[in-house]
Amino acid sequence: MSRESDAVRRHWIAQRRAMVDPGAGPPADESWGDLTAEPREVDYVEIDAGGRPAMWAIPKRSAPDRVLLCLHGGGFISGSIYSHRKLFAHLAKAAGVRALIVEYRLAPKHVHPAQVEDAVTAYRWLLEQGTAAEHVVLTGDSAGGGLSISVQLRARELGLPLPAAAMPFSPWVDMAATGGSYKSNRDRDPFFLAESVRQFAGMFLGPGGDARDPLASPLHADLAGLGPVYIQVGGDETLLDDARRLCAHAQRAGVEVRLDVFPGMLHTFQMAAGRAPEADDAIRRMAGWVRPRLGLGEAS
Amino acid sequence: MSRESDAVRRHWIAQRRAMVDPGAGPPADESWGDLTAEPREVDYVEIDAGGRPAMWAIPKRSAPDRVLLCLHGGGFISGSIYSHRKLFAHLAKAAGVRALIVEYRLAPKHVHPAQVEDAVTAYRWLLEQGTAAEHVVLTGDSAGGGLSISVQLRARELGLPLPAAAMPFSPWVDMAATGGSYKSNRDRDPFFLAESVRQFAGMFLGPGGDARDPLASPLHADLAGLGPVYIQVGGDETLLDDARRLCAHAQRAGVEVRLDVFPGMLHTFQMAAGRAPEADDAIRRMAGWVRPRLGLGEAS
Repeated sequence: MSRESDAVRRHWIAQRRAMVDPGAGPPADESWGDLTAEPREVDYVEIDAGGRPAMWAIPKRSAPDRVLLCLHGGGFISGSIYSHRKLFAHLAKAAGVRALIVEYRLAPKHVHPAQVEDAVTAYRWLLEQGTAAEHVVLTGDSAGGGLSISVQLRARELGLPLPAAAMPFSPWVDMAATGGSYKSNRDRDPFFLAESVRQFAGMFLGPGGDARDPLASPLHADLAGLGPVYIQVGGDETLLDDARRLCAHAQRAGVEVRLDVFPGMLHTFQMAAGRAPEADDAIRRMAGWVRPRLGLGEAS
Repeated sequence: MSRESDAVRRHWIAQRRAMVDPGAGPPADESWGDLTAEPREVDYVEIDAGGRPAMWAIPKRSAPDRVLLCLHGGGFISGSIYSHRKLFAHLAKAAGVRALIVEYRLAPKHVHPAQVEDAVTAYRWLLEQGTAAEHVVLTGDSAGGGLSISVQLRARELGLPLPAAAMPFSPWVDMAATGGSYKSNRDRDPFFLAESVRQFAGMFLGPGGDARDPLASPLHADLAGLGPVYIQVGGDETLLDDARRLCAHAQRAGVEVRLDVFPGMLHTFQMAAGRAPEADDAIRRMAGWVRPRLGLGEAS
């Protein structure tokens, strides 16, 4: 692991410490985003996307009509368009397209399916602005990675056209936290213990919520008919099996899917974009994968 | 000192450590900016300001024709429109105006007066866009605080109209580092030893450069005729006397000047804006002071 990626590990250790020792006080939510370098030459404009606060990240010289619809992580209880501004801007800049980063309502104040509905609202708004569905790719990390799948299921229910593709990274797709990597990576992942993840899931699902609801846990959804999916995950994270099982589940449904496991990496290691070589490599791979899906040529 | 402002102290301790122990590797330049919370509801657009890279920070609902021309600190050898994006956006948002953050060439590659010339270029460009000089206020921290004065001296030489006012904070205005507070605050300021500051000054002035050049050290300039000046400084910083002497020097020249010393605070403590109460108080005071100078009413 590079020295720069080790900052991601230290972040998760600090988050764990803040969780088990309330006296320590929580680190500022944006400290997650402090892992990311400024991408530079990207403009940021906050807008109202059909009632949802959102932020355009517009790299200089990017295609104006190709959009990454970006859904941030944070266990559905934290994260924002601000914590993930730089991360998604790096991805948009590498891909040569715009990013629309969406703010969705957070748990526990707002429980499932508020998050899916909010993401669909932004997606529908984007189509209403004249963006072709085939020029949109959904992406997101962690909770946002799961959303990048479930928003498509909900969009289909509503009769909306589906986007060109999805790029979930470190996706969280099983609210029951049953993946075997919760055990096998337990000593390597400093934050995501199965019991903590179930606690987040409980806040997200709300009283009486069902961890096997396909819109909450896309691992239980019918994925047939979805566009191509590119999944990235860290080899040392306890959510490794969420990614592996999503990959297998999509393959069984006939979906074109690619999974890249990054050895030694932790949850959302891409947050160190612009600093850590592993994160930059991951961003480059996503950009290279997504450009032809958006009808664009090789990245320059 | 609040817990949040203590982060500023830890930043300077880390910077010092990086300087005396090259093996530690320098902290990322942007780590300075990580002290600042995201202001939110501010857009950022990078532009070319007459040949200088610059960034508009445009708070929602701000006056479109009133501008803070912002010059970042960093000892003339570091800092950027990225490290100071959030800081100046906080100030612009509190004042209800736009900020134009200017990138100037850095020492030691580019020596004095390249920095003054670059700042004048951006100021001249702003006037050419149709912004009235009386609707512009210059501001800056540390090296940028000195620049906020010297750019006016150079603009005057060039026959340009002067801006409405200036708001230097923690200004560095004496390249010879002769202030008495280098001694009296030596045990309180973790970074700015006189010998280090003279080292920075040497890189800025270049071989044969004169520390008493009025454009390099505004403390030796004729300030008569300048608009009002509002200076802020931390009570514990070794640059305290730069601020005090600039205040006295401006007063002797008949300039309207106000100096606020913030007890216990360190160099550019305003960087903790959005997190530390002392920084937010300082930003509020600047906003309250500047609005009438720009022909605006009380801040809402």
